[in-house]
Amino acid sequence: MNSNDQQVIVLMTDFGLNDPWVGQMKGVILSLCPSARIVDLTHAIEPQNIVHGAFMLGKSCRYFPEKTIFVSVVDPGVGTSRRPIALETSRHIFIGPDNGLFTPVLEQEEIMCCMHITENRFMLPKQSSTFQGRDLFSPVAAHLTSGISLKETGVEIDPCDCIRIDMPACKSPDNGRSWEGSIIYADHFGNLITSLDSDLIGNPEQWLVIADNVDPLPISVTYCCVENKKPLAYAGSSGMIEIAVRNGNAAGSLNLANGDKVRLARK
Amino acid sequence: MNSNDQQVIVLMTDFGLNDPWVGQMKGVILSLCPSARIVDLTHAIEPQNIVHGAFMLGKSCRYFPEKTIFVSVVDPGVGTSRRPIALETSRHIFIGPDNGLFTPVLEQEEIMCCMHITENRFMLPKQSSTFQGRDLFSPVAAHLTSGISLKETGVEIDPCDCIRIDMPACKSPDNGRSWEGSIIYADHFGNLITSLDSDLIGNPEQWLVIADNVDPLPISVTYCCVENKKPLAYAGSSGMIEIAVRNGNAAGSLNLANGDKVRLARK
Amino acid sequence: MNSNDQQVIVLMTDFGLNDPWVGQMKGVILSLCPSARIVDLTHAIEPQNIVHGAFMLGKSCRYFPEKTIFVSVVDPGVGTSRRPIALETSRHIFIGPDNGLFTPVLEQEEIMCCMHITENRFMLPKQSSTFQGRDLFSPVAAHLTSGISLKETGVEIDPCDCIRIDMPACKSPDNGRSWEGSIIYADHFGNLITSLDSDLIGNPEQWLVIADNVDPLPISVTYCCVENKKPLAYAGSSGMIEIAVRNGNAAGSLNLANGDKVRLARK
Repeated sequence: MNSNDQQVIVLMTDFGLNDPWVGQMKGVILSLCPSARIVDLTHAIEPQNIVHGAFMLGKSCRYFPEKTIFVSVVDPGVGTSRRPIALETSRHIFIGPDNGLFTPVLEQEEIMCCMHITENRFMLPKQSSTFQGRDLFSPVAAHLTSGISLKETGVEIDPCDCIRIDMPACKSPDNGRSWEGSIIYADHFGNLITSLDSDLIGNPEQWLVIADNVDPLPISVTYCCVENKKPLAYAGSSGMIEIAVRNGNAAGSLNLANGDKVRLARK
Repeated sequence: MNSNDQQVIVLMTDFGLNDPWVGQMKGVILSLCPSARIVDLTHAIEPQNIVHGAFMLGKSCRYFPEKTIFVSVVDPGVGTSRRPIALETSRHIFIGPDNGLFTPVLEQEEIMCCMHITENRFMLPKQSSTFQGRDLFSPVAAHLTSGISLKETGVEIDPCDCIRIDMPACKSPDNGRSWEGSIIYADHFGNLITSLDSDLIGNPEQWLVIADNVDPLPISVTYCCVENKKPLAYAGSSGMIEIAVRNGNAAGSLNLANGDKVRLARK
Repeated sequence: MNSNDQQVIVLMTDFGLNDPWVGQMKGVILSLCPSARIVDLTHAIEPQNIVHGAFMLGKSCRYFPEKTIFVSVVDPGVGTSRRPIALETSRHIFIGPDNGLFTPVLEQEEIMCCMHITENRFMLPKQSSTFQGRDLFSPVAAHLTSGISLKETGVEIDPCDCIRIDMPACKSPDNGRSWEGSIIYADHFGNLITSLDSDLIGNPEQWLVIADNVDPLPISVTYCCVENKKPLAYAGSSGMIEIAVRNGNAAGSLNLANGDKVRLARK
């Protein structure tokens, strides 16, 4: 890869924005690669929730330009022997801990190159034991943007050896007659995002969404298809079926929580 | 408009920063226009509060460079028949839903061109029904930054046909002897921002601010003109009269809320 | 200093991200210097807590490139006679109020030039009394990035005359046998950051961290050295000794608060 003024580095972490950690990562990157274009995907992954981070990354990376480098840090095992890795797909590079965070990337994309990052010369000279986001992953991303090749960063490994985690499922017990999934998380508006893929449903008018504590919900086309403060289901902007309350907060009012079962059934 | 490496795209939404939506909008923009300079105005507009968004946009756009494109999304009617529009003034371009969000722009500035955005070729190929911020407004902004002309985006319409909403007023019942307004919102410090324009007052020493539950307040020049934990009024950085509590939180302690009446009276 | 496309302006404030203030500062900077690269360090300094801001700035500036300009605003005395100042060190420039916010910079670095900013021509034409971050500090930073010299901004002053504040101490009463400090703040994860410098300890196995309401804590190398929900101490990413609870929130569960005494003692 050659140096490229337009190359984007995307940061996704569970660090929040109240501390200077994300700012320090950007300082490290710009010190090594002054022309890097840095974009925040989100820093509000639920602390140490690898599934949440993996889901967000898998759903979002498609919207970014080719050659974007994703520095992704949700890392309860920082400082242990879990490996720092870098994955190259046909479109992107992903850098972060080998703890399952890249499960959707590993399962959905062809991996062109997978590296265990070991070369100290691409890391900060002084390493803290708890902040590899700043001291290891950020400088490696900056060096890649400045033109080093991925293979220089360490030891090539087999992507099959990378850690995978169980992602919230979307499975059919009856050959596509119905689908079973669960609630993954609640967004900023309190809308409940499920693991049911909205591409499954074809004509929305043929389906109902079934969850505990709620009457079966037809799939609406917009928020405005139901009365004020009533629940609805719809194909959300994340590509998943979501449950919301019109002009209300579903997470706060529907008695449904992360992990609860949700089902798609034909009318 | 020609392609311009320095052109700024400003994002203002009610999406918050906990979800990847804002990051995805940036990915879409950079995929289409790698040199775009993207700035966040704020993503903490009160969810679906069009008045709040309109006020913030009207007060903030003057600080941005000429040719800045504002992508503004506070959009309770997303997915309904409300129109996506683009407005060009002598200094800026505004893109977003035709729901009143651009009321201050329409009322304060000369509109050079007003478009109903209809051209699918400038939108993402796959449109979700609930996220036009990512799928429609962001790519149109990126194409404009890359050099297409505003008139290519759809059908020209009369700006008089755009939706306007009632903005919090600042009116005088007695030819300038006094002024009547209301509280618009509370900022991060709990300071209460009113709709009373601080340009009205000339010499601050001649005026008092009258609100329920508080003694009449003289207009202070700085926070330090009153004792600790005491309320004060002053000409705020938004260009409006604000009510604060020194080293305290006015919203939390003064028993005043959004919409409450506030009056400026001569001493 | 010559104009430089790669020059970074870092913003650190207590403004939060819910209001448009930070966005307006960026608009002012880009209006004057379209090529400026703006990075947020954090905008979540505890409101008006100068010590917190000074600590964050002192710990973070080392990670940013040479010639970075730091616009730092934690400013309870805005609008009073406290001076707006600019400091140049061998690596960086710092702009903000003369209220102690630059204490660590003044104490740790050689000051090459120290200016009382007085030149109106580098400020916005219309000055609010409460928002010098936008109206004074941001435009001065933009002009410096565009190529004016620091000495043009006002009157040179002696850095010894700048305000210094008491920073949380890290002192030894017994010539290095033990060290006394205090808790400075809690981060996003609830980890308690102390004023005890982790460079003091050499071999971590020889030390214990002593705080009220907690058994003496050995210094762990990673979070994973103790059982789930148990407290631990370690050398944190800020370069300070921190107290955490594994997979828990120390600030919420340990009955320790900002300012509480913490001691390092040899085993």
